[in-house]
Amino acid sequence: MLIVMHHKATDSQIDAVISAVERMGLVAQPIPGSERTAIGVLGNKAYVDDTNIRDLPGVKECIHVSKPYKMVSRDFQPRSTVIRVSGHEIGEGRRPVVIAGPCAVESEEQILRTARAVKGAGADFLRGGAFKPRTGPHTFQGLKEEGLKLLALAREETGLPVVTEVMSPDTVGLVARYADMLQVGARNMQNFDLLRELGKIRAPVLLKRGMSATIEEFLAAGEYIYAEGNHNVILCERGIRTFETATRNSLDLSVIPLIKEFSHLPVIVDPSHATGRRSLVPSMAKAALVVGAHGVMVEVHPEPEKALSDGPQSLTIPGFERLMEEIRKLEGFLGY
Amino acid sequence: MLIVMHHKATDSQIDAVISAVERMGLVAQPIPGSERTAIGVLGNKAYVDDTNIRDLPGVKECIHVSKPYKMVSRDFQPRSTVIRVSGHEIGEGRRPVVIAGPCAVESEEQILRTARAVKGAGADFLRGGAFKPRTGPHTFQGLKEEGLKLLALAREETGLPVVTEVMSPDTVGLVARYADMLQVGARNMQNFDLLRELGKIRAPVLLKRGMSATIEEFLAAGEYIYAEGNHNVILCERGIRTFETATRNSLDLSVIPLIKEFSHLPVIVDPSHATGRRSLVPSMAKAALVVGAHGVMVEVHPEPEKALSDGPQSLTIPGFERLMEEIRKLEGFLGY
Amino acid sequence: MLIVMHHKATDSQIDAVISAVERMGLVAQPIPGSERTAIGVLGNKAYVDDTNIRDLPGVKECIHVSKPYKMVSRDFQPRSTVIRVSGHEIGEGRRPVVIAGPCAVESEEQILRTARAVKGAGADFLRGGAFKPRTGPHTFQGLKEEGLKLLALAREETGLPVVTEVMSPDTVGLVARYADMLQVGARNMQNFDLLRELGKIRAPVLLKRGMSATIEEFLAAGEYIYAEGNHNVILCERGIRTFETATRNSLDLSVIPLIKEFSHLPVIVDPSHATGRRSLVPSMAKAALVVGAHGVMVEVHPEPEKALSDGPQSLTIPGFERLMEEIRKLEGFLGY
Amino acid sequence: MLIVMHHKATDSQIDAVISAVERMGLVAQPIPGSERTAIGVLGNKAYVDDTNIRDLPGVKECIHVSKPYKMVSRDFQPRSTVIRVSGHEIGEGRRPVVIAGPCAVESEEQILRTARAVKGAGADFLRGGAFKPRTGPHTFQGLKEEGLKLLALAREETGLPVVTEVMSPDTVGLVARYADMLQVGARNMQNFDLLRELGKIRAPVLLKRGMSATIEEFLAAGEYIYAEGNHNVILCERGIRTFETATRNSLDLSVIPLIKEFSHLPVIVDPSHATGRRSLVPSMAKAALVVGAHGVMVEVHPEPEKALSDGPQSLTIPGFERLMEEIRKLEGFLGY
Repeated sequence: MLIVMHHKATDSQIDAVISAVERMGLVAQPIPGSERTAIGVLGNKAYVDDTNIRDLPGVKECIHVSKPYKMVSRDFQPRSTVIRVSGHEIGEGRRPVVIAGPCAVESEEQILRTARAVKGAGADFLRGGAFKPRTGPHTFQGLKEEGLKLLALAREETGLPVVTEVMSPDTVGLVARYADMLQVGARNMQNFDLLRELGKIRAPVLLKRGMSATIEEFLAAGEYIYAEGNHNVILCERGIRTFETATRNSLDLSVIPLIKEFSHLPVIVDPSHATGRRSLVPSMAKAALVVGAHGVMVEVHPEPEKALSDGPQSLTIPGFERLMEEIRKLEGFLGY
Repeated sequence: MLIVMHHKATDSQIDAVISAVERMGLVAQPIPGSERTAIGVLGNKAYVDDTNIRDLPGVKECIHVSKPYKMVSRDFQPRSTVIRVSGHEIGEGRRPVVIAGPCAVESEEQILRTARAVKGAGADFLRGGAFKPRTGPHTFQGLKEEGLKLLALAREETGLPVVTEVMSPDTVGLVARYADMLQVGARNMQNFDLLRELGKIRAPVLLKRGMSATIEEFLAAGEYIYAEGNHNVILCERGIRTFETATRNSLDLSVIPLIKEFSHLPVIVDPSHATGRRSLVPSMAKAALVVGAHGVMVEVHPEPEKALSDGPQSLTIPGFERLMEEIRKLEGFLGY
Repeated sequence: MLIVMHHKATDSQIDAVISAVERMGLVAQPIPGSERTAIGVLGNKAYVDDTNIRDLPGVKECIHVSKPYKMVSRDFQPRSTVIRVSGHEIGEGRRPVVIAGPCAVESEEQILRTARAVKGAGADFLRGGAFKPRTGPHTFQGLKEEGLKLLALAREETGLPVVTEVMSPDTVGLVARYADMLQVGARNMQNFDLLRELGKIRAPVLLKRGMSATIEEFLAAGEYIYAEGNHNVILCERGIRTFETATRNSLDLSVIPLIKEFSHLPVIVDPSHATGRRSLVPSMAKAALVVGAHGVMVEVHPEPEKALSDGPQSLTIPGFERLMEEIRKLEGFLGY
Repeated sequence: MLIVMHHKATDSQIDAVISAVERMGLVAQPIPGSERTAIGVLGNKAYVDDTNIRDLPGVKECIHVSKPYKMVSRDFQPRSTVIRVSGHEIGEGRRPVVIAGPCAVESEEQILRTARAVKGAGADFLRGGAFKPRTGPHTFQGLKEEGLKLLALAREETGLPVVTEVMSPDTVGLVARYADMLQVGARNMQNFDLLRELGKIRAPVLLKRGMSATIEEFLAAGEYIYAEGNHNVILCERGIRTFETATRNSLDLSVIPLIKEFSHLPVIVDPSHATGRRSLVPSMAKAALVVGAHGVMVEVHPEPEKALSDGPQSLTIPGFERLMEEIRKLEGFLGY
């Protein structure tokens, strides 16, 4: 249950509600917001009787939530969240951001060359994996901290803020020292200890949808980070696993407007992992912007045929430059 | 195997190849094309040895096809097919068409009111089901021939050509008497007797993708109609069935550019059945055009809340008018 | 709505109920049963007000059904249906039947040799396709009527009743002249005109589950045949299409006890199409019997490596003989 | 690449091969086995040229592996692995084990009551979650270390070894102090840091298949643990996510014989999470044994209607007792 307080509820009214909840043997979690304050009621194992709560002074309404998420929902916060990252704003009404770079950081030469190129073409962020989740243990697993250092070097040279993946709770601190935005990969969307750890920092988190996660589960994963205190959560749709094998995943863009109906969080699209085919990436990147995504993340590699991972879905540098031109025109049409 | 003849191969050279194939105990199917002539080799149960064929006069090359489709592939015909229907052209380089109307024809008043409205808003075709495939036998199954007559009446009044579904081989003749384009529904995509029967007429066929059909199976279904002699086949993507239940189906628009890589046939998108939610239809219709679809088909109902089927996914008339305005602007941006 | 009459309701009471329904502008469909009579109410477009019906003499109860099937449900008929086919009984409490034979009838020699072998090993029915639904039009499509004649010949020689597929409404009569049980393939599960046509005959119909059909849709397809008047419907689970490609389909046997909870119809399992791998067929055939299937249908071919279709999933004759020995032992354990 | 040494290869021959590999800039990982020694070659980014290796003294063959797993494959170790856990043996040829208990440890009374009951009925292991991965953060997350202590108490009283879930790398040590077998849940199947950490201990690990993991990905996850040095890996099939919503997941038991073809690791089945419905659990548990599973894990709760999680799929105590009787009879039939 969520207890929504009146706009002008006093601190003592809020305290009185908290006490009433605790007398019921439940946990009250105050959630201060810019528009209104709410008190989440946790610890219940079934429907909570709100008789003793709803008429207390300062209480506006009691919302009984059956969904596994509360705080990231539009019901709770109707206003769209806009997240500031290193001088950029991500969210509704802002020009969509473009995050570009290789799947994995492979060498200083590779990441610097890519960073310069995507910066030159107009990208807003540099992506690159230092810790790589790979299906099997016998393939390239990333350069780890060395990769993080190379990303920081690329940022220093180009000014591009850096997005990179974090795979386990105990490396959150390490990755946060180097990255401007921390990415949770699809395979870790329900790695709840990792999500909770990310909830304790304040750096923005880019949360990718799990391969077979429903929208409800996706938002509930965001709720883990948000409820822990880190409100800088950006969702990333990257396709789901279906019976179709002609593409790597199936990218259903209708989830973008749907997520925007259900949640106030920003949401971007990764057309590279979604399709797995270079030739499809530009079309899907543009379609993502048309349906209202707040950004796109695309893989770019100076020599895709030599990439240690995801070569077939990486754009070449000239390919990325062409895409950026098309994106600029489309943004003009869309009014940004 | 497909034997491709030289541009200037003579009739007697073609006959000689056919004879050679038949001497091998196989069937030779000449496929005259505007660019080149080909001879399909059928009846083989395994790899065909082309030693006796490939060096015959007039033979350009022998293509061994392992895919279940040949004639609808780009390999066979590199040039995109454009289909003429009642004064409209559907295909690459043409302004995308808009097909609009109710899920089912319900009454004279309903179909005429809708037809006038969608005509006024700029639709190119009127859709409406007279034969309705329904999950269970105890719900409204369509007005059948009476529905076809009402569609014809609406065409007479508005000038809009009519698209309607045909469900069985023995009603192909009946439906073809009333319709300008015959639709095969998703449930019948592999109703091969129906496909073969549609191959014998010359009216355009709108073939919807089956709920769990791969792209390969989708194109092979088109091949059934095409190989029988009817080359007026338009494909229609309408979402696939996945684990996600927040939308009716999952609409992966990346199949549009992919189908255009694999096949020369035109392809359109039905965002209404794909999403099952009115609020998502406009976004996905526009995204379909951005990724290169040759048209969209949307459900429109004057009173969706009273519709006998598919109300929740039907646009209202004002909703459709707004969508058409946005589509016109987008077409301008896209250069049509 | 379904109006259930008392056990001893008189004909005039039934007529009075029918008249009352018709006065409401609806269609009343009397459904005589061995245990009780019911009257299906059709033609309604929304909830039916039963005020004028439920208190009429002889009415036991009014069941408002939201599912797309009524008559095949356990709610309607609690007693399990047992179907008699050419001296065999298929259903609850009966020894499970074994249907065996090649995917397709290929030649007299092939079908006779297989028929003798499976008869010798203890099969109850011979299967074999004469009309073959194939993904593409350029592969072997079956021997058609010639194949039906060969099946009849094999029946004459071995005494085995014959199961074979029918693909279109206009060939139902032809196939019914030769077959003891008519099969509807997975691709045609929602070919509603075919289902309705099969509802008009009395020969048993083996209805295979569609590749992406829910259980509810599967039962609703059975309802099409049943409601038309043919109560001899046997369901056949054959695996569903999922993301897993290591097997041809995914065979979830838990649907067997679940279907038996929901419906009174018999249900069998086809482990050959479900798995697509010969090595997995025996395990899954035995598991099917353990979970309560009323039979299994397995593909057997004298020379699988030369089969025109489905070779990799066909058992050899010695393989089938071994399976039958194991099945006999298992039946003993299960108490048949 | 995997270099397989001759049965009688000497240590100096092995050292020579390792040196040769290292001279190629690659990593050589010796894998001592009871039947033969092998040397895994890691670090390559493409096909490895084996010219300098294959003719060295003592080398039997060089296997080029394209699959993401090597050491858990039958190719590498043809003999089935049998794992010893607290006096029990799990694997081929051994009586299948039964693991039973509640989804979550909820209280001392609940776990002790369940432990005594399942022990009395013949279970081999007690299961119970102390760390619970839940879709949303606002529901019961487990008793954590307190839950582990209660499990240890139940073991002390009943003698049943304990299986419980571990969710993050930093709690592996804690959980290992209390548990006899550590479970990795479906959501964490590709939590690679967790898998690697589990590879460093020697306690048996029960690895559940991810909701949308292919068999290949499942085995590759096992390879992460195995390659790190912990060879006590037991796989657990628990159903996959599909379009079907009538059951919680879809349990395709054909993966059991298939995994046994591909891998030497033991594999068990969890019919409770697979089906999500109490009424289907006994059928699927028995079917699992018939297809060759080395054990089953079932949820049992003294009062399922009051369970904090997974009540609808938990067997009651009398229900479990009935299942154990049926399992004993079936084991007799199967020859254990």
